[in-house]
Amino acid sequence: MASDNNNKRPHDLLSELLEEELEAVNKLIHERMTSEYAPRIPEIASHLINAGGKKLRPLLTLASAKMCGYGGQHHIHLAAIVEFIHTATLLHDDVVDESEKRRGRPSANLLWDNKSSVLVGDYLFSRSFQLMVETGSLQVLNILANASATIAEGEVLQLTVSRDISTNEEIYLKVIRGKTAALFSAATQVGAVISEADAKITNALYNYGDALGIAFQIVDDLLDVEGDSKLIGKNNGDDFRERKLTLPFIKAISSCDANEREFWKRTIEKGEQTSEDFNRALELMNKYGAIKKTRSIALKWGKIAKESLEAVPDNSIKLILINLADYVVDRVK
Amino acid sequence: MASDNNNKRPHDLLSELLEEELEAVNKLIHERMTSEYAPRIPEIASHLINAGGKKLRPLLTLASAKMCGYGGQHHIHLAAIVEFIHTATLLHDDVVDESEKRRGRPSANLLWDNKSSVLVGDYLFSRSFQLMVETGSLQVLNILANASATIAEGEVLQLTVSRDISTNEEIYLKVIRGKTAALFSAATQVGAVISEADAKITNALYNYGDALGIAFQIVDDLLDVEGDSKLIGKNNGDDFRERKLTLPFIKAISSCDANEREFWKRTIEKGEQTSEDFNRALELMNKYGAIKKTRSIALKWGKIAKESLEAVPDNSIKLILINLADYVVDRVK
Repeated sequence: MASDNNNKRPHDLLSELLEEELEAVNKLIHERMTSEYAPRIPEIASHLINAGGKKLRPLLTLASAKMCGYGGQHHIHLAAIVEFIHTATLLHDDVVDESEKRRGRPSANLLWDNKSSVLVGDYLFSRSFQLMVETGSLQVLNILANASATIAEGEVLQLTVSRDISTNEEIYLKVIRGKTAALFSAATQVGAVISEADAKITNALYNYGDALGIAFQIVDDLLDVEGDSKLIGKNNGDDFRERKLTLPFIKAISSCDANEREFWKRTIEKGEQTSEDFNRALELMNKYGAIKKTRSIALKWGKIAKESLEAVPDNSIKLILINLADYVVDRVK
Repeated sequence: MASDNNNKRPHDLLSELLEEELEAVNKLIHERMTSEYAPRIPEIASHLINAGGKKLRPLLTLASAKMCGYGGQHHIHLAAIVEFIHTATLLHDDVVDESEKRRGRPSANLLWDNKSSVLVGDYLFSRSFQLMVETGSLQVLNILANASATIAEGEVLQLTVSRDISTNEEIYLKVIRGKTAALFSAATQVGAVISEADAKITNALYNYGDALGIAFQIVDDLLDVEGDSKLIGKNNGDDFRERKLTLPFIKAISSCDANEREFWKRTIEKGEQTSEDFNRALELMNKYGAIKKTRSIALKWGKIAKESLEAVPDNSIKLILINLADYVVDRVK
């Protein structure tokens, strides 16, 4: 049994351990994404929600509440809220990025249209907001309102600094804290808050979510550069084509010579790209060890995530969360 | 003074009477639309907010709170919230409608891009959400969460029924209750709720906002058909070109003969339009009295708005709100 568990991915172990709760979350999600008048809403929402995402964020909320000994029913609400917010941002992201693939399937903006993606995203966000009110906790509402603002701000920041090759690591960190880590940290934090855990535990879980989210996004950005497009469920090199400066690019650009700088100016700033340019970009990254450097920063954040949990008493879920931090960064080892 | 006041538009009278509060609202709006990291946010938001909208919705909230004798400070928050939600929906609407003009100026999606409009809309919505939490009232949060969901649902419904010439008046009413009346009624209702007014008054103000919003949108749709493009601050005939079936169209289509039905099928369902077609549409509307019928429905809703206020004790603000209902429908007399 132990050796069997060792072969399982940590989020699959979490799904098993929290099977009953996760089922209740799925039921609530399906109940709340219906619309009496506008059937396109559940059509689009379920296209995404049923597409087999790992449900990592709701699992984090459920895990956090379980670790803190929560005995009520609102953790189900919180997990559904987190998934709704995540789905809403995916819908809007795909419009912004003009993506054609999401989770290995054609994106909603491609199957329906941008309009539907914008409005259904708004609807899911409003639905999440109604669920928050049902928890009756102003503290929970406060955390999620702040997380929502941080997410939107991170997305706008990403838009304004894209195509600007002077973007540095500090700005990149602000962007990914907004677009990814803010929801991870809110997910773990609200699980503790609803359980009335003490500040030490609540902060530890917040910090875990924050660091895990940062590690997760850095790895995602690395996979976009060097991953297998079949495994990652989207096209490889998308960020380069969208002229989005992720950490491997920032690392390569910060070391480049004048001649190479012209390459980055042409491809990223001016957007004049040929089919050969992505390979040239990869070469430059490898030349300056940009991929290796990015990987070691991801590892650092994975380590911070694990260390954050030192404040939390040992238990089986904590162990899985530690393994999850390793798993997230191992994807690029 | 009295005759001077008679010449003033009711919302200008409200602005004067509530000048101090409105100034506090504007100050709060400007404070909260800033972003430390993403200067594009206040840039876009102020493009819209400074474009001289009438601030009708925040005025309704302030008026409602004043009528109910509110003595606290949260009416300022509520008015700013309502304006933020309104601005966020305008930004998303312009993306959905591919509009080129808003309030007589180029729309944000044209000046910047669709991406920015989507994300800045999300940011403003999140900001409004933070302000709601600050009021500390779960009842207020509940009303605004429900209004947000109704707005988004109405917008999606509008999208799914557009281009469908079988759309009837009932569906149209659902659409405009969502896209317009839901925020009007929430605006008046929260002013009463924050004042802890009794249920009779709260319901009366809710009903006033609902009916005023419906009248307002019907008139807006009429103006799109027969208004002066300079006065309405956008292009005339937009709804026809966007194949959006508003009440004058629904009225004309419901009376048309088989031959005319082919015209509507071609122009609205198939979207095959020539530059002459809008005039032909106007002719058909006039032939069946569609504009006159629509106008009388707007008048009916204006009357319902006024009658709703019968439950509210007489005072100077109530009088202005009654005049406002007349003014809104008088725009198409």
